[in-house]
Amino acid sequence: SVKTNTMSPKITVELLRHLRQAMKNSKYITEPIQAYIVPSGDAHQSEYIAPCDCRHEFICGFNGSAGTAIVTEQHAALWTDGRYFLQASQQMDNNWTLMKMGLKETPSQEEWLISVLPENSKVGVDPWIIAADQWKNMSKALSNAGHSLVAVQDNLIDAIWEDRPPRPSTKLIDLGLKYNGLTWQDKVTALRGKMAERKVSWFVVTALDEIAWLFNLRGSDIEYNPVFFAYAIIGISNIKLFVDSKRLLHPAVQEHLELDSPSKPELTIQCFPYESVYTELQAVCAALAPKEKMWICDKASCALTRVIPKAHRSAIPYTPLCLAKAVKNPTEIQGMKMAHIKDAVALCELFAWLEKEIPKGTVTEISVADKAEELRSQQKDFVGLSFPTISSVGPNGAIIHYRPLPETNRTLSLNEVYLIDSGAQYLDGTTDVTRTVHFGTPSDYEKECFTYVLKGHIAVSAAVFPNGTKGHLLDSFARASLWDSGLDYLHGTGHGVGCFLNVHEGPCGISYKTFADEPLEAGMIVSDEPGYYEDGSFGIRLENVVLVIPAKTKYNYRNRGSLTFEPLTLVPIQLKMINTDLLTQKERDWVNDYHRKCREAVGAELERQGRKVALDWLIRETLPIV
Amino acid sequence: SVKTNTMSPKITVELLRHLRQAMKNSKYITEPIQAYIVPSGDAHQSEYIAPCDCRHEFICGFNGSAGTAIVTEQHAALWTDGRYFLQASQQMDNNWTLMKMGLKETPSQEEWLISVLPENSKVGVDPWIIAADQWKNMSKALSNAGHSLVAVQDNLIDAIWEDRPPRPSTKLIDLGLKYNGLTWQDKVTALRGKMAERKVSWFVVTALDEIAWLFNLRGSDIEYNPVFFAYAIIGISNIKLFVDSKRLLHPAVQEHLELDSPSKPELTIQCFPYESVYTELQAVCAALAPKEKMWICDKASCALTRVIPKAHRSAIPYTPLCLAKAVKNPTEIQGMKMAHIKDAVALCELFAWLEKEIPKGTVTEISVADKAEELRSQQKDFVGLSFPTISSVGPNGAIIHYRPLPETNRTLSLNEVYLIDSGAQYLDGTTDVTRTVHFGTPSDYEKECFTYVLKGHIAVSAAVFPNGTKGHLLDSFARASLWDSGLDYLHGTGHGVGCFLNVHEGPCGISYKTFADEPLEAGMIVSDEPGYYEDGSFGIRLENVVLVIPAKTKYNYRNRGSLTFEPLTLVPIQLKMINTDLLTQKERDWVNDYHRKCREAVGAELERQGRKVALDWLIRETLPIV
Repeated sequence: SVKTNTMSPKITVELLRHLRQAMKNSKYITEPIQAYIVPSGDAHQSEYIAPCDCRHEFICGFNGSAGTAIVTEQHAALWTDGRYFLQASQQMDNNWTLMKMGLKETPSQEEWLISVLPENSKVGVDPWIIAADQWKNMSKALSNAGHSLVAVQDNLIDAIWEDRPPRPSTKLIDLGLKYNGLTWQDKVTALRGKMAERKVSWFVVTALDEIAWLFNLRGSDIEYNPVFFAYAIIGISNIKLFVDSKRLLHPAVQEHLELDSPSKPELTIQCFPYESVYTELQAVCAALAPKEKMWICDKASCALTRVIPKAHRSAIPYTPLCLAKAVKNPTEIQGMKMAHIKDAVALCELFAWLEKEIPKGTVTEISVADKAEELRSQQKDFVGLSFPTISSVGPNGAIIHYRPLPETNRTLSLNEVYLIDSGAQYLDGTTDVTRTVHFGTPSDYEKECFTYVLKGHIAVSAAVFPNGTKGHLLDSFARASLWDSGLDYLHGTGHGVGCFLNVHEGPCGISYKTFADEPLEAGMIVSDEPGYYEDGSFGIRLENVVLVIPAKTKYNYRNRGSLTFEPLTLVPIQLKMINTDLLTQKERDWVNDYHRKCREAVGAELERQGRKVALDWLIRETLPIV
Repeated sequence: SVKTNTMSPKITVELLRHLRQAMKNSKYITEPIQAYIVPSGDAHQSEYIAPCDCRHEFICGFNGSAGTAIVTEQHAALWTDGRYFLQASQQMDNNWTLMKMGLKETPSQEEWLISVLPENSKVGVDPWIIAADQWKNMSKALSNAGHSLVAVQDNLIDAIWEDRPPRPSTKLIDLGLKYNGLTWQDKVTALRGKMAERKVSWFVVTALDEIAWLFNLRGSDIEYNPVFFAYAIIGISNIKLFVDSKRLLHPAVQEHLELDSPSKPELTIQCFPYESVYTELQAVCAALAPKEKMWICDKASCALTRVIPKAHRSAIPYTPLCLAKAVKNPTEIQGMKMAHIKDAVALCELFAWLEKEIPKGTVTEISVADKAEELRSQQKDFVGLSFPTISSVGPNGAIIHYRPLPETNRTLSLNEVYLIDSGAQYLDGTTDVTRTVHFGTPSDYEKECFTYVLKGHIAVSAAVFPNGTKGHLLDSFARASLWDSGLDYLHGTGHGVGCFLNVHEGPCGISYKTFADEPLEAGMIVSDEPGYYEDGSFGIRLENVVLVIPAKTKYNYRNRGSLTFEPLTLVPIQLKMINTDLLTQKERDWVNDYHRKCREAVGAELERQGRKVALDWLIRETLPIV
C-alpha cells in the first residue's frame, strides 16, 4: 500500500520542447514569455495534492510533495529541499538542474532567474497556483531587476499534458452531529459573528479543510486528506458554495445542506460550479458598498486575491475558520480520544506481532507499513491513512522524511533501532504517532539519546504555561536535555492536527521557526515530537498527539489561568530504550502515569476486542519503572 | 543624586497656543498643518536623551523617557506606557489627554488622528526625530484615510522653546588600547571587510554608541551614556566624521584620530560640522555609481534615510558595527570582569552598611541610592551611573521601572522586601545588577516566589545551547518554574550590555518579544533578570550580567559547538530569601559554585582595599547551602 516511486529518470526532451513552444504560442499568451514557473501545490495551496495537480512531476519526473520547476528558453531547474535531494536527482534526466534548497551556494528562484534571463524578460506563472504573498515577493524581485512577472491564465503544463487525470469528484459524506458536534448552520452563524466583530461583510474561503469543516462534509479527492475541491464565499446574509454540481445530487447531501428547504433565508446555500468562483467573486465585488471589507487568506491564490479591489481586501494570515477549526469542540475531542484508543489497539497488535515475526528475518520496512495499515483497517470507522507511513530501520531512520522504497527497503532485525511514524483517518478523528523501538539490545548510546528525547517530550507534555502563550515558546523545552549533551534535531517539535481532517493544520504548532503562530488555547490539538538523528546510524523520534487543557496551579497571576497538555496518543514507550538513571523522579512518575493510562484505556478496548496477545504485550510493556 | 521630578502639572495653555500658531506660520511651512507629532527621542534614536532633546517634556510637562505628544487644532494627547501612567497624569495639566498604551481601549496614534482630523488633513513631523520605519507606517495609515504626513524641516517645538538648552559638546576622551583592545583603524578596516563582503561601498553611521565604539572615543553628552553627538559616513576609502569642530581641537584627540598625520590615505578622517551631515550625504549620493549600495540602519532618521536614493539604499535592521560591538574582544571582556569586581565591592559595602543602619529607621530608598553611588564612586575609573537607580521597598518594588521620588520615598525596615537595580560606568566597563533582599524575616510566600525566580535565573545562566541559537529561544527557561505555579513576569529576561557604553544595546537579548535578534555568540554580554511582582505588596528581581562562552559538551552534533554563560556580576544572592527545599541538587551546586566565585574574586579585592566589614559580610553571605 505504500506508494513506490520509479527511480529511473523521466525522459523530458519532448515535454520541454512542447512547453517552450507553448511559451511562445499566442493561443495562450499575447507576448512570448522567457520563463515559466511551475509552483508546487494546487489552487488551494494544499500540502498534499491530487494527481491532476502534480504538474511539477509531469514536467520533470520528480514526484516529491514539494518542488518548484522553472523552465526558460535554455534551462530547466527544479528547487526542492533536503528531504528530496536523492529522490529528485534519480527521477530527473539531465535536461534538469537540481537546485538544493537550504545549501548556501544554491541561488533562490529569483536570483537564478535574474542570472539567466535576457534583459526585460517576461516570466509567466499560473496565478491560480501561486499564492498572493509569493507572487508579491517574486514580482518585486523581478521588477527590481528589470523583468516582469505575468499571469498566464491558461496553465501551460495542462495545455501540453495529454493524458492529464481529471479533477477528482468523489462522493461527499455528511458525518452527522454525532461526529461534528456543531451543525454547519451554527458554524456559519459563529463565523458571521466574527465577521461582524471586525466589520467584515464577506469572506472568501479557499482552503479545502476549512470548507470541509464549515459544511460538515468530507470527500476523498486528495489522498490522506478527507477533503473535496470547492470554494465558498460567505456573506452576512449569503452562502455561496462552488463545487462540482453532480456531487450535490445525492439526497443525503441535499438534505444535509438544506438545498431544497432552507430553515432560514440567511442560511440558504447558493450552489455554483467549482470553476465559476472567479466570475461570481467578480460579481460580488462589483456590488460592494464603498467601505465594505472582504477577508481572504494571504496564502490564497493570486488569481482570486486580485479579483478583490485593494480598498475592499483584507488579507489575513489565518482565517477565523482556521482558528475555529483548531479549537476542537467536546464532540470532536471525544472522537479524537476514541480514534487514538483504536489506533493504539492496532499498534499494540503490531508490536506484539513484530516481536514474534522479526526473528524469522522476513519482516521489512514495507511489510510493517502494510501490516500497520491492515491492523488499523480492522478498527471501526477506519477511512485510510493520514499520511504515508515512515517505517525505517537503522540508518534509514536518520532520514527524517524517509519512505521505504523497494530499493531502500531494509529487513527488521534484533540489531538495529526501528522507527515507525504513522497515522490514520477514522470518521471520529485523525491520528499521528511515532515510536522508536529495539527488538534486541539497544546500545548504551542509543538508550542515552532516546532518553534525552524522552526527557524533551515529557518537558513539553508536562509543561504548564499561561493562557495566551504561543507554541513556539515551548520549543526549547523539548531540546534542553539534548542541548546539555551537545545534541539537537533540525525540525520543529509539533504541528496542529485536524479532527478527521488534515494531519497538519494551522495556526498553531511548537517550533523555533514560526513566530506568527496564534496562542495555544484549551481544546487545541498538536503533536509533541522531538527526535535525534545520527546520520548513517539510527533515528529516534517520540511523538504523541496532545490536547491543550486548563491546568490547575497553586497561584493564578493576574487571573490569566494556565494550560497544559493531555496525551491523546496512548501507545507504550519502550522501556528497554530508556536509561532510567538519567530520569528525574518527576519524569519517572510521568512515564508510569502515562503507562497506567495506556493500560487502562487501551487495555479495556483490547479486552473488548478479544485481542489477548496484544493485551498481554500491553500489560508487560506498561510495568512501572523505579 | 537621583533626579527628582516635580509633581505639580506644567501649565501649557500658552505653549499650546504658540505651537498652534507655528503650525500655521508660513515661516516654517508652506501650508498649514492640522496636527503636529512630537516623537520621543533624538535624531539618533537614542534611548536616553539630552535636555535639548526633551521636547515632549517641554510641551506637556511629562518627563518620562518614552512619550509621544500629538497636538491638533483642538486636542493635545500624550502616549506613554504602563511605567509612566501615574507620573504622566500628575505632570500634565488638563489641556492634555493621557493615552495609556497597552490598554485595549486606547487608540493608536494613527487611529486617534484619523478620528479627530478633518478630511484631507496634513500631519507634520520633524523628519530628523522620526525613524524611517516609523515614518513609513504612520504615512501609510494616514494616506489610507485620506490624510498626509508631511516633513516639517524646522522643529516647531524648538521654534517656540525660548530657553532651550544648547546641544551638549562635552570633552572627548580617548580611552587607549588598554581599554579598547583594538585601534579604531583596525575597526574601520574590519568594517570595510564586511562592506566588501556584501558589496556595499558606503555606510552611514547614526547610532551614537556605534560612533563612540568605532572611533574609540567617549563623551558625556547624554546622562548615563558615555556618548557624544556625531555622525559618520564610512566609504571604502573615505572616513567622514561629523562632530562639533571645537571638540577636535584637543591635542590628544587630534593625535588619536591622526588628524594631522594619517598613517594611510584610506585612514584619513575628514571632519565636518555635526549639522553638515545632510548636505555632505547629498554630495556623496550625487556621486554614486549606478550599482553602488549604501547601508543605513532602518531605525535611522527619516531625514537622512531619504537622502539616499532608493536604488542605492540598503536599510538593515542591525548594522555591522552593532554586531561587531556586541562581540566583546579579550581586552573588553577583561575590563568588564574588573568593572564587575569593583562594582561588587561597592555593593558588599552597601549591604553590610544597610544591615547596620536599617534598624535605626533612617535609611530610605533615596538614601540607599545615594549611598550606592557614593560607594561606587570610590572605585577606580568610576565615571558615573549607567542608569537611574531603582531602589524600592515593599509595594514600590512591584512597579517595574520605579524611581524613588520624595513623595513616594519609603523607609527600609526589617519587615519589607527591598529591591535594588543599579549599575555604573567605569572606564573599563559597564555594570547592571539587581538584588532583592530582606533585612528581617521574609514570609514563606516571599521566599517561595524568590526561589522560583532564582530557579529561572539559574536555568538561563546554566543553559547549554548550540551555536547559532537566538536569545529569545532561552526566554521560557527563565519562566518555567514560575509558570509551574501559575506565576509570571511581564518583561523580557535580558538585554545586551555595552562595554563602557550603553547599558542597553542590541542586537541580542533574551525575550519572548523579539524574534529579529541575532544569534548569541561567544563574547557577547547580556543580562539575565527574571522577576516576580506582586502588585501592592513586593517585587523580586535577580539580575546578573553574563558573558556568552563556549561550552564543553559530551557530544558535538554536526560540529556546531555549544555555548553557555559565565556570570560577570559577582554579588551574593541572599540565602535568607531561598527556600532550599525547592532547589534541585544541580541548582544548589550552582548557588554554591557561584558564591565560591564571589568570595574568591570579590573577597580578594575587598582584602586588597582593606574593607574588612564588607569582607566579613561577604564571607558570611557566601557560606555553602546544603
